[in-house]
Amino acid sequence: MKRAIIAGDGVLPSLLLAAGPAEIVRFAGTDGLLRATVPARFEQLGVLFSDLRTIGVGEIVFAGGMSRPMLDPRRLDPVTEQLLPRLTRAMAEGDNTLLSTIVSVFEGEGFKVRGAHEIRPDLLAGPGAITGAPSAAQELDAARARAVLEALGPVDVGQSAAAARGQVIGIETLQGTDAMLHFIARTMPGSYGVLVKRPKTGQDLRVDMPAIGPDTVVRAAAAGLHGIEIAAGGVLMLDPRSTRAAAEAEGVSIWAVP
Amino acid sequence: MKRAIIAGDGVLPSLLLAAGPAEIVRFAGTDGLLRATVPARFEQLGVLFSDLRTIGVGEIVFAGGMSRPMLDPRRLDPVTEQLLPRLTRAMAEGDNTLLSTIVSVFEGEGFKVRGAHEIRPDLLAGPGAITGAPSAAQELDAARARAVLEALGPVDVGQSAAAARGQVIGIETLQGTDAMLHFIARTMPGSYGVLVKRPKTGQDLRVDMPAIGPDTVVRAAAAGLHGIEIAAGGVLMLDPRSTRAAAEAEGVSIWAVP
Repeated sequence: MKRAIIAGDGVLPSLLLAAGPAEIVRFAGTDGLLRATVPARFEQLGVLFSDLRTIGVGEIVFAGGMSRPMLDPRRLDPVTEQLLPRLTRAMAEGDNTLLSTIVSVFEGEGFKVRGAHEIRPDLLAGPGAITGAPSAAQELDAARARAVLEALGPVDVGQSAAAARGQVIGIETLQGTDAMLHFIARTMPGSYGVLVKRPKTGQDLRVDMPAIGPDTVVRAAAAGLHGIEIAAGGVLMLDPRSTRAAAEAEGVSIWAVP
Repeated sequence: MKRAIIAGDGVLPSLLLAAGPAEIVRFAGTDGLLRATVPARFEQLGVLFSDLRTIGVGEIVFAGGMSRPMLDPRRLDPVTEQLLPRLTRAMAEGDNTLLSTIVSVFEGEGFKVRGAHEIRPDLLAGPGAITGAPSAAQELDAARARAVLEALGPVDVGQSAAAARGQVIGIETLQGTDAMLHFIARTMPGSYGVLVKRPKTGQDLRVDMPAIGPDTVVRAAAAGLHGIEIAAGGVLMLDPRSTRAAAEAEGVSIWAVP
């Protein structure tokens, strides 16, 4: 049974490909590093399902972010046309709902959907210090940011937040972690705070699993955030070696909590 | 019994002064438009209390934002030194706690603390359309942003949030509404969403009352937000006439909900 990676942006698709052979599905209009072996269109999911079945794909892994598609209604195939009301409704209800709807659509077509963390469990951190333990002040800021993320869980918002000296200085919205870090760097450059990144409460880890990498560390440091707390077993470390090296170079402590 | 305005930035102190004679207290190192009649230092609250009593002030109104002070420990007077642990603890627990602590400190000294909305009730909007009723899509976005603010109430974060097409695209943090609007303008210029501004759940309206003015409207429009929902009786309209004129010029609907 073949595997297909639904490839979005960033390095995660490549990291999954390194774990074993896979077809690469890329939707027209999305960015990514890997060349598609199965080109696809958001408007033609029926064509995609049939292409995947034809080449013997039984397992699907979603990897990397994708921007929300613009749809060309003239190109809709019958399968997509039928799914559209369900997807549109899900889209209005937030990311979790949309993504779990997408998972059930693939499952409903007979594909097994697996999470990136199941293919590369080596990229998950266990609890404890990764590049350093938090200071007492960092623990307080981490607790503050974590409380914000927990409060936001029920409304399906927020995979990351930042706090400094007890004050909340950034909450991730649709624009993503990088945009939030850039905002903090611009508005509070010497914040000396903490970034907390974890899955949303109730989030299906098979899609849109939170991740950090060397870029995250460099951007956090540029925002004055010298501590990063991640959820043990809930956040992928993309390229753990470079992430550690970047953290050491930038003086950033990374730790994981249960 | 004289009134004193603890004057922060923006036009609110002037709007309160227009309602009747008042002493103007300004803390060293803060910005503002009005000249202080009672200059003060954060480190010398004891001196301030005694100055206010000497000139016969019995009523205090806080008006306009102030940045969090840097304290020079060598300048602390005995009263402030004694208050410091209480204020520092409150600061770590978020804005509501800090501000209500400040209110009780003034009350404990025998001053009556009144809210800006009590001095200028004419600046509060009643429920209904102010410059336009929301479209169906704007109602949905407003409900989404409102749900986020309600979820954040218990952790004392967020006087405003923005949503577009059902997605949350901005949540106010320490940096304030303007910084959030600038973030949206930069990251999602054509958002066509809605800004919701309301007091935090349980917020003492006598301090840090949310406000909108013509600037807010222009900044919202620049962020592609063509709807602004405020809490009826809970948000000050600074300069209602210019705010309405700006909203009409920019094509922004403003409405108030209970």
